[in-house]
Amino acid sequence: MLWPRVAPHGANIRLLGVVMNGAESLVRTLVKGGVDVCFANPGTSEMHFVGALDRVEGMRCVLGLFEGVCSGAADGYYRMTDKPASTLLHLGPGLANAAANLHNAKKAGSGIVNIVGEHALYHIKYDTPLTADIEGIARPFSHWVKTSPTAKTVAADGAAAIQAARVAPGQVATLILPADTAWTEADGVAETPDTPSPQKPANETVVAAAKALKNGQSAMLFLGGRALRAKGLELAGKIATKTGCKVQAAGGTARIERGAGRVPVLRLHFVVETALDMLKGTKHMVLCGAKPPAAFFAYPGKPSVLVPEGCEVTTLCPVDGDPLASLEALAAELGALNETPANVAQPDRPDRPTGKFTPEGLGAALGATLPEGAIVVDESVTTGRGFFPYTAGAPPHDWLNNMGGSIGFGAPVAVGAAVACPDRKVIAMIGDGSAMYTIQSLWTMARENLDVCVMIFSNRSYKILYSQLADVGAANPGPRAIDMLTLDRPTLDFTLLAKSMGVPAAKALDLEELTKQLTYAMSQKGPYLIDVVM
Amino acid sequence: MLWPRVAPHGANIRLLGVVMNGAESLVRTLVKGGVDVCFANPGTSEMHFVGALDRVEGMRCVLGLFEGVCSGAADGYYRMTDKPASTLLHLGPGLANAAANLHNAKKAGSGIVNIVGEHALYHIKYDTPLTADIEGIARPFSHWVKTSPTAKTVAADGAAAIQAARVAPGQVATLILPADTAWTEADGVAETPDTPSPQKPANETVVAAAKALKNGQSAMLFLGGRALRAKGLELAGKIATKTGCKVQAAGGTARIERGAGRVPVLRLHFVVETALDMLKGTKHMVLCGAKPPAAFFAYPGKPSVLVPEGCEVTTLCPVDGDPLASLEALAAELGALNETPANVAQPDRPDRPTGKFTPEGLGAALGATLPEGAIVVDESVTTGRGFFPYTAGAPPHDWLNNMGGSIGFGAPVAVGAAVACPDRKVIAMIGDGSAMYTIQSLWTMARENLDVCVMIFSNRSYKILYSQLADVGAANPGPRAIDMLTLDRPTLDFTLLAKSMGVPAAKALDLEELTKQLTYAMSQKGPYLIDVVM
Repeated sequence: MLWPRVAPHGANIRLLGVVMNGAESLVRTLVKGGVDVCFANPGTSEMHFVGALDRVEGMRCVLGLFEGVCSGAADGYYRMTDKPASTLLHLGPGLANAAANLHNAKKAGSGIVNIVGEHALYHIKYDTPLTADIEGIARPFSHWVKTSPTAKTVAADGAAAIQAARVAPGQVATLILPADTAWTEADGVAETPDTPSPQKPANETVVAAAKALKNGQSAMLFLGGRALRAKGLELAGKIATKTGCKVQAAGGTARIERGAGRVPVLRLHFVVETALDMLKGTKHMVLCGAKPPAAFFAYPGKPSVLVPEGCEVTTLCPVDGDPLASLEALAAELGALNETPANVAQPDRPDRPTGKFTPEGLGAALGATLPEGAIVVDESVTTGRGFFPYTAGAPPHDWLNNMGGSIGFGAPVAVGAAVACPDRKVIAMIGDGSAMYTIQSLWTMARENLDVCVMIFSNRSYKILYSQLADVGAANPGPRAIDMLTLDRPTLDFTLLAKSMGVPAAKALDLEELTKQLTYAMSQKGPYLIDVVM
Repeated sequence: MLWPRVAPHGANIRLLGVVMNGAESLVRTLVKGGVDVCFANPGTSEMHFVGALDRVEGMRCVLGLFEGVCSGAADGYYRMTDKPASTLLHLGPGLANAAANLHNAKKAGSGIVNIVGEHALYHIKYDTPLTADIEGIARPFSHWVKTSPTAKTVAADGAAAIQAARVAPGQVATLILPADTAWTEADGVAETPDTPSPQKPANETVVAAAKALKNGQSAMLFLGGRALRAKGLELAGKIATKTGCKVQAAGGTARIERGAGRVPVLRLHFVVETALDMLKGTKHMVLCGAKPPAAFFAYPGKPSVLVPEGCEVTTLCPVDGDPLASLEALAAELGALNETPANVAQPDRPDRPTGKFTPEGLGAALGATLPEGAIVVDESVTTGRGFFPYTAGAPPHDWLNNMGGSIGFGAPVAVGAAVACPDRKVIAMIGDGSAMYTIQSLWTMARENLDVCVMIFSNRSYKILYSQLADVGAANPGPRAIDMLTLDRPTLDFTLLAKSMGVPAAKALDLEELTKQLTYAMSQKGPYLIDVVM
């Protein structure tokens, strides 16, 4: 697997006669393996990696002011490219700061190669300030973890990390790089081995799924992962035409390709009662790229499992399978490949709304202004739950949701999506409470002039928790409980926040102003923030 | 250990005839055990804890917009009170967001009781979005970890967590509270068992330490932890008078009591060469509350161990011992109890500086304005390294440093110190790069009207990394490496940032203006931010 020391991108005369250290062998291995973006927040132990950037062509390094920006950006980048980016993090605490968005990425099936600095191995035993159990920190958030023991192994370990990150649907791989392995002489660059393709469904599974769906309206094709790309939804639409089955998306969806010309699909609702209503009457459920539906949280007296009682569940394709190949095999088995999906979204935009903010009006403002190719990163939590109908007929676009439930996901994922797709407008819709976890993202948007329109829904509360208080049975909250859910003392001024980090911004106090602001934001390039003061 | 169900703070008639759930039994147990401050960022699974706040008297709940604010605040609170506070965190990702400052707290020996929500135990197997290995996440950052299995055990487990947090010098205890244990009926309130006192040194250890120090100038008393309180420094001063030994503080110090009337001590320098100079000539080192000095990082060709070659090291008191009792025993053994410390800081303030910013001028500005009883939280990184001489004769104050090396420590610790000591002025000196990790702290300062003066040293870079690049041997950085160390594209406007979160702020562009701003900040109560634009 180790290659002789050569410059991977043609002649690099600075390399001739120069000893390559472990850090440089890793950077070259990453670039050679197609991992050519690094979302970085480095410290001392990562300085050799940073130093190598000027000797290696082809690595785009994007600085974040907080590690959660970096990990969330890598998540967004993967969702839009199906290609892992790397992060560069400073020892255990740097990794810990990245961990919440690594959790979200892991749940979303996003491939990431984390490079985490570590003390020189001989130094660890002195238990100096930054010493920590980095492997222990990494494990709950990673599918693959390794500390590279020597400079000679760094390149091969980096290649193995890339290989692991590419395992379907995408995995979090964490490579720990002791400082002495970074600064000691390496052997050369490693080539990344192929990642085995995900398993295709066995013929009898396809036959069983086909049989289940033939039950028409009492059958449901339940989709997740890449089944929600346009191609997968088209296949699902053909299958629905042929069998009369329902098509339903999981509650958590990493990326849905939707808009005019595509087969629309609804996400399973967060509220248990509504989700149960959506699944009611289903006697045969076929899973493709999704797990059986379960409640987000447990609540007293409510079920965890949302599959209706007596419903038979068939897994056509597990989460780590190949949903598109599976749907294709299923459509073929059903003779549905030449069907026309009955339900295709027609081009249709709502009128530009006016008046006070309402959930419907906000959906209409978005639907009226969404440009073709937009990437919507949705961390609107309570506010945006009803936006799908208003945007179903907008020009084709992508819609990204949080699959790990850790808030602070939206702005970082928008950074990564914008780096991945510089020619597309990214729209990040974020609740005010959520936005504050990773607000440092705005600075990276300004620094890289990323084409992101950030909408902050300022309802001055963790609004979702009001209903959650009742749902868990902690009803009739008193003033102290309410105080833990409100963000109005003081109010946050997101336009000042944005400007402090170099992002132009404006407030919108009604739907007309919001629609005007959105129209402006869509007409220009570069970051822009709209504080939707509700 | 379980008490009958009684209202711990006198009559609480709301409790009569009302079933107490697990969450309430925990809140009552915490208050009864003296843990009466909670730095919280709750979510759904913590709603019963929040709901109990209105039924239980005596718990002050302080909201943070990011979990790192909460954990850092608990660290600062402990340093100033020697009493653990609790945090309230939302499942695995919430704990992960708190982890970097838990790491700092753990290294500082600060006792904290983390309460982390978890799914109902029967719900975990469905692997829903927020499911994670919470115990695994907690372990690298905690001395004690437990998931309470039932509502009946929550109170006793809470009491055990308090007991663990109080183990000297202070420990991080993490109690994981599954939602069903919070909402199910509990038995009552638990009483916190006593924590065993730290071991006092054996007589032969005291005799050996005394013998070592009798070597005069070639001997050094090396102090950490509570040895750096005024009482410990006074004892060290008496011992120095008697023996002629040197007195030196460790590089990382959780809290030094210093200023006029106290025995001054220098911290060991971060830079290896300077630290080696400070320790040069030491042939006998006596450790009290500190580990043997080691380099913060490893560097090629530089030692990890800073103890001079051939120096004999005697541990009078380990980090988890009783430094004050140990120094007292040592002074008694040496017959030094009635000595007068030779080196006591005399009241002395530098003149109010003018002109351009210099390290000396910044130190003088602080020294000229520091009020009596001030608590200085020092995350000034490169800028403030030389401030000690300028403040040695200022009125008595405390000085808190980062012992874990994870930046983003300053503003949260200032929050906790201000909650702990409402009658004292807190001065948080923070580098611009460091400040951005936990900038959400400003909002909590505004919300609680905390008496904190935040000084941001805006040098528009991770300045320490310039020297670190050279120190690790990654010299001659090119433009891409430099780009990862600079924060000037765009510049951060900390006055706008502060105002966006309700904290008044001003810029200072020279020493005269800074001194004027500091004088104003010291004259009033409540949060104030000065952006020191360097």
